[in-house]
Amino acid sequence: MTTTSTDRQLDELLAQVLGSLQGEDPRLRELAGGLVTHLHAFVRETRLTEGEWQRAVDFLVRTGAACTDRRNEFILLSDMLGLTSAVDEVNHAGPPTMTPSSVEGPFHSPAPPRPMGAWIAEGPERERGEAAVVHGRVTDCDGMPLAGAVLDIWQANDTGLYDSQDDEQPDGNLRALLTTGPDGAYWFRTVRPSSYPVPTDGPVGELLRALGRHPMRPAHVHLRVEAPGHRPLTTHVFVDADPYLGSDAAFAVKDALVVPFVPCAEPAMADRFGMGDQGVFLEARFDIRLVAEGPVQ
Amino acid sequence: MTTTSTDRQLDELLAQVLGSLQGEDPRLRELAGGLVTHLHAFVRETRLTEGEWQRAVDFLVRTGAACTDRRNEFILLSDMLGLTSAVDEVNHAGPPTMTPSSVEGPFHSPAPPRPMGAWIAEGPERERGEAAVVHGRVTDCDGMPLAGAVLDIWQANDTGLYDSQDDEQPDGNLRALLTTGPDGAYWFRTVRPSSYPVPTDGPVGELLRALGRHPMRPAHVHLRVEAPGHRPLTTHVFVDADPYLGSDAAFAVKDALVVPFVPCAEPAMADRFGMGDQGVFLEARFDIRLVAEGPVQ
Repeated sequence: MTTTSTDRQLDELLAQVLGSLQGEDPRLRELAGGLVTHLHAFVRETRLTEGEWQRAVDFLVRTGAACTDRRNEFILLSDMLGLTSAVDEVNHAGPPTMTPSSVEGPFHSPAPPRPMGAWIAEGPERERGEAAVVHGRVTDCDGMPLAGAVLDIWQANDTGLYDSQDDEQPDGNLRALLTTGPDGAYWFRTVRPSSYPVPTDGPVGELLRALGRHPMRPAHVHLRVEAPGHRPLTTHVFVDADPYLGSDAAFAVKDALVVPFVPCAEPAMADRFGMGDQGVFLEARFDIRLVAEGPVQ
Repeated sequence: MTTTSTDRQLDELLAQVLGSLQGEDPRLRELAGGLVTHLHAFVRETRLTEGEWQRAVDFLVRTGAACTDRRNEFILLSDMLGLTSAVDEVNHAGPPTMTPSSVEGPFHSPAPPRPMGAWIAEGPERERGEAAVVHGRVTDCDGMPLAGAVLDIWQANDTGLYDSQDDEQPDGNLRALLTTGPDGAYWFRTVRPSSYPVPTDGPVGELLRALGRHPMRPAHVHLRVEAPGHRPLTTHVFVDADPYLGSDAAFAVKDALVVPFVPCAEPAMADRFGMGDQGVFLEARFDIRLVAEGPVQ
């Protein structure tokens, strides 16, 4: 009987809160109502104690305090709970022939335009790292080449650091804007990126440790591709055989985005990609299929 | 077919996130799993867009930035969504004869011990406000008086401000610790509190405006009562006829906590309560029934 009474009170409470959500924006009412309903259900199902509520509030306050102009601990939290990937998933449905999207992550910044085939590794990683060519074609979902497609590329270096995190790298290092010609082809020369940990010195790092989770993201290159008449695509290219592919802390891996980085020493290939001075280099092919603008098919 | 594919991807994503929740604390795993499940369902059901996700992240960052040592904007957010009341509800089930609990709110601070019957209004509100006596008995759920019960009382003044918000009030104003004698009776002299707005100059205030909600809390006195062998009770006494009783911004009102503040000019009552110099004063009776410690009945 006691439980029944509590349940009735909780029903009435939720009805009051939902009834209070007015305002002129119907979508905001829908979102607020959905969130309130789920959070009340969470409290009810877990019988959340007052001490647990207090710890949750403290966690949010500390997460806020960890945010700076250069660090967004709430985005990191969203990434680590798979929410960013869920938002990505619901917004980028399309035909099975398209290249799947993946999350943007926190490291995008404006990239320098470079000529097709450029070396984008200009820091000390150029000497230390494993030289790699990434290449492919930008096409529509029927395989027709897209000219004038702009690829925005960014990646970490061989030690897992982006230029913005590393004083040894020049600004714009391991970033590029490339524009395709009539054949839709693209290529660039770089070093194989390394897997890396997300920042663990804040509240989200504490949470990962308390949940027995590692903070690693498998090695990847970020790509954002825009072509006239097509939906923009933000995605990752993951390096196959990375030990963290099956347990990406950000839950961003999709099978179609995992690409072999194949050791290559053929003179013809080395000539084609300007890698004659590198001995063995890695070759990765990643074709990109964009969806035409308009309603989702 | 597209939707089915997205749903399958979302199922797999959620399973991955849930599978990653390890760690040694089974309760933390349960809470994290419940929260993740509800938040993923929210994203899925609302088809949350990337722009909406970004706005939500920005809201959390700004809510964090609004927190100080003296202001907790996340507690305010929890209050305004009825979550604090929901947590209160699930943690304080008991027999229907007990006095219901209500949320503590952000204004509790250590109160000065005072003699039974003390005037607790010592600031300018003593001249301006409506004099009131609040009295009753602390008993168990069978009506047996509880001696040695300590009541911790705090309230806003006639302009809706607590001492910590108002330079005109001395520290400890409108606060008291009172201890009951063998008859369990308590009483104190004060001014009728005013309804007041929660702080609206931060992100939570913005949210209330966007949702067409007012920020008002109906007039109330806070009480925390502890007696040996009984469960502590934190609750409110609400002033009846307050215009905001039906729309408390914090959703903390319960019928059994709403008490008439009755104008009284009887000489016998004025003598009893030391109100002979006040002319008409308000009289409010609020009996408090505590639940014996032990398992919930």
